[in-house]
Amino acid sequence: MALEDLSQADLEQELAAATEAYGDFAARGLDLDITRGKPGTDQLDLSAGLLTAVAGDDIRSRDGVDVRNYGGLEGLPELREMFGELYGVPADQLLAQGNSSLTLMHQALSFALLAGTVDGDAPWVGQPRRIICPVPGYDRHFTLAEALGFELVTVPLDDEGPVLSAVEELVATDPTIKGMWVVPMYSNPTGISMSEERTRALLAMPTAAPDFKLLWDNAYGIHHLREPHAPMLDVLGLAADAGHPDRVWVFASTSKITHPGAGVAFYGGSEANIGWFTGHLGAASIGPDKINQLRHARFFGDAAGVRRHMSEHAALIGPKFAAVIEKLEAGLAGTGAARWTDPDGGYFITLSVLPGTADRVVKLAGEAGVKLTPAGATHPYGLDPDDAVIRIAPTMPSLADVTAATEGLAVCVRLAACEKLLAQD
Amino acid sequence: MALEDLSQADLEQELAAATEAYGDFAARGLDLDITRGKPGTDQLDLSAGLLTAVAGDDIRSRDGVDVRNYGGLEGLPELREMFGELYGVPADQLLAQGNSSLTLMHQALSFALLAGTVDGDAPWVGQPRRIICPVPGYDRHFTLAEALGFELVTVPLDDEGPVLSAVEELVATDPTIKGMWVVPMYSNPTGISMSEERTRALLAMPTAAPDFKLLWDNAYGIHHLREPHAPMLDVLGLAADAGHPDRVWVFASTSKITHPGAGVAFYGGSEANIGWFTGHLGAASIGPDKINQLRHARFFGDAAGVRRHMSEHAALIGPKFAAVIEKLEAGLAGTGAARWTDPDGGYFITLSVLPGTADRVVKLAGEAGVKLTPAGATHPYGLDPDDAVIRIAPTMPSLADVTAATEGLAVCVRLAACEKLLAQD
Repeated sequence: MALEDLSQADLEQELAAATEAYGDFAARGLDLDITRGKPGTDQLDLSAGLLTAVAGDDIRSRDGVDVRNYGGLEGLPELREMFGELYGVPADQLLAQGNSSLTLMHQALSFALLAGTVDGDAPWVGQPRRIICPVPGYDRHFTLAEALGFELVTVPLDDEGPVLSAVEELVATDPTIKGMWVVPMYSNPTGISMSEERTRALLAMPTAAPDFKLLWDNAYGIHHLREPHAPMLDVLGLAADAGHPDRVWVFASTSKITHPGAGVAFYGGSEANIGWFTGHLGAASIGPDKINQLRHARFFGDAAGVRRHMSEHAALIGPKFAAVIEKLEAGLAGTGAARWTDPDGGYFITLSVLPGTADRVVKLAGEAGVKLTPAGATHPYGLDPDDAVIRIAPTMPSLADVTAATEGLAVCVRLAACEKLLAQD
Repeated sequence: MALEDLSQADLEQELAAATEAYGDFAARGLDLDITRGKPGTDQLDLSAGLLTAVAGDDIRSRDGVDVRNYGGLEGLPELREMFGELYGVPADQLLAQGNSSLTLMHQALSFALLAGTVDGDAPWVGQPRRIICPVPGYDRHFTLAEALGFELVTVPLDDEGPVLSAVEELVATDPTIKGMWVVPMYSNPTGISMSEERTRALLAMPTAAPDFKLLWDNAYGIHHLREPHAPMLDVLGLAADAGHPDRVWVFASTSKITHPGAGVAFYGGSEANIGWFTGHLGAASIGPDKINQLRHARFFGDAAGVRRHMSEHAALIGPKFAAVIEKLEAGLAGTGAARWTDPDGGYFITLSVLPGTADRVVKLAGEAGVKLTPAGATHPYGLDPDDAVIRIAPTMPSLADVTAATEGLAVCVRLAACEKLLAQD
C-alpha cells in the first residue's frame, strides 16, 4: 500500500521502521560518492592503449602531417571522418578540437556575444538575453550560460524532449530568447532521447530571434547501455530541410569514451557555422592537440572500433545501472514515495521523490555517508521548485558500493516521505 | 662604400651586378620557407620521450590523482612548481592549462570584455577600447586583439622595451587604453629583452584606466641562444612593489619547448587575478589535460631538466642563427642597405631594410623561391609605415636551407635598394 494511503498510526509505524533502517544504514559507516558522472577506473583502463598509440618517430597523420608541430586548426581529417560517421555529421562540418566540449560551448557563446552569429543582426552582448533550459537538465549548462549573462528560463521535458508548446510559446514572440540547451540522446539526467518528430518541430518552429540556436550537446550519443539503441538523427540535414540550416550547434566529445581529462571535443554545424566558428577560433588558436587526436584515430582505427569500445563500457556500467534499479525496486516499489528512470543509455538515473523531500533525502544520505548531487542541481540556479529531483550517477563507484549506496538511499527516501506525510496531517 | 653615397653610374653598375646575382639565385630553383617560428623536426625529436612518459597504469600524479579523469582546474601542482621556478612566478600564482597560451590570452581578454576585471569598474565590451602594440611585434597578438574589437595603437620599441615616454603619454589621460602587449624577453621579432628599469616604470606609471593590463607574453623566457642569458624578472613581485599587483597577466607555454601541437600553457597573476581567471574558467572547463601535464612533469623531472633541454634546443638552432648573421654580413655589410639584430635568444632575426623596400624584397625573394613573412606583418593591420621591417625565422629549415635562403635574401635587399635609390634620383 502506498505510504500516502496509510492511516496515521500505520504511517508512524512505517516511520519507526524507516528510522531504524536508517540507523542501521548509518551505522555501516560508509563513505560513498555517487555525485558526478565520472567513468570508473575500469572504464579508464579500457583506453590504456591510447596512451602509447603515438610514440617514437611514428608521428605522421594519414596525410603525412607531423602532428607535433603547429597548425591544422580544424583537426585531423581521419578523426573528423570517424566521429562524423558516429554522430551523423559530414566530416567537413565537424571540427575536432581539444578537451573539452564545455570549452567549445563557452567559445561558441562568447563568439556570439562578442561578434554575433551568422544569421543574427548584432552581437548578443548588447542585448538582454535568455536561454531555455529544459528541466531536469545538466548543471554545467546552466552555470555556463549564467556566467555569460544569460537569464535561464525553464521548460519541462517529456519522453520525446522539451515540451513543444512551452518552447514555442517562449520563442515565438520573445527575441531575447537566443537559444536552448538540448541533450538530444540519453539526456542528463533523465535518459530520454529526442524523437525525430520533436526534433523536426524544434528545427522548423518560427522564432522571434532570427539567430535562435539549439545548443545540441550530444554528450551521450553513442553511450548505449542496451538494446534498443536510440537512433542518431541527421540533425544538420533535418535543420537544412526545415529551412534553418544555421540553427544547430552540435557538440560532442570523447570525455566518456576515452579519458575525460584528455579527450577530443567536436563542434559541428552548417557550412556557414563552421566558417564562423573557425574564423573566430583562428584568432585564439594555431591548432588543437593533433598528437592526441592521432592517438585517438589510431587507437580506434575506425568508427566500428569506437562502437566496439562503447560496448565494453556498457558491459562495465550496465550492471551498476541494473543494481540501482533493483535496489530502488526492492526498497521503494509500491510505496508511492518515488519514481525513477531506467535509461537505455547515458550516465544517469533520475529519482523523483515526494515533492518537498529531495533536499531532505540528500541530507539524510550525506549524514549516513552517501554523497549525492545537491537537490536542485538539475534545475537552473539550483532551484527545483518541487524539491523532488535527485540525480544518481552510478558509474564511478564499484558495483558493491553503488548497490550499498542505493539501498541506503531508498531508506532515506522512505524516511523523508514518512516525515513529510506525517507533517502534513 | 654605402650604396646611397655612390654616384648614379656606380649605382647603376651595382644594380646590374645585383640583378645578375638575383638571376643566378632564382635559377637555383629553391623552394624554401622562413616565414613562421616553428621548431625544426630535430627540435621536436628532442621531446620524443615525452610521448610515452605516461603509460599503462602508471597514471597517478605526485598527489595520487588519477590524471585520466575529470577535475583539477588549476593544473598539476608539480608542473606549476617546475615552471613557476623557471618563469619567476610563485606556483600558486601560476595555472597550468592546455595548448595554448594564445588561447589563454583570448580567454583572459574575453573574460575582461564580458565580465570586467578585478580592478575595473565595468566589463570592457561596452566601452571603446584600445590596446598598445609595441612595434615591431607579433602578428598574432595584433590579430587577436583586433578580432576582439580593440583598436591597435603603436609605440616604438628601443633596446630596453617599449619607449616609455610614448607609452606614458597614451596611458596617462586616455581611459580607453586598456592594456599593452609585451614580449618581455627575446621579443618577437627584435630579440630585445625588457630592462628592469623599464619594467618598473611600466608597472608604476599612472594610467587613466584603473584596470590597465600588461599582457606579459613570456613566450621565449627560457629560450636562450647563448650567454649572457637575459635575466628573468620577478614581474609579479615588482608589480606588487609598484602598488599595482593586478596590472600583469603572465602568459607562457611549452610550445617551443616540447611540441607546439601538444603543449602546456600557463597563466600567471596576482592572487586576485588567479581567482578571477579560475572563476571564469570554471564555467568553461572541468579541467585541463592532466595526462599531458604529467607527461611534461615526468619527462623533465625538474626545472634543471627543462634548462638542460633548452640548451639542447640552442645547440640545434644556434648555428642557424649564426648562419643568417654570417650571410647578412657577407652580402650587406657596408652597403647601408640594411641593419639586422643578432639576438641572444628567441626565435627571430629582424632585418631592417631601406625604407620603402621591404615589400619589394619579400616579393623578389618569393619569386626566387624563398618565402618570407609578408612585409608589414610585424605591425598592426599589416601596415609598416616605413615599409622597412622583415622578420626572419631561421629555426624550421635545415642549416643548408637557411644559409641558402639568407644568401638570396641579401641579394634581394641589395637589388631593391639599388632600384629605390635610382628611382629617387
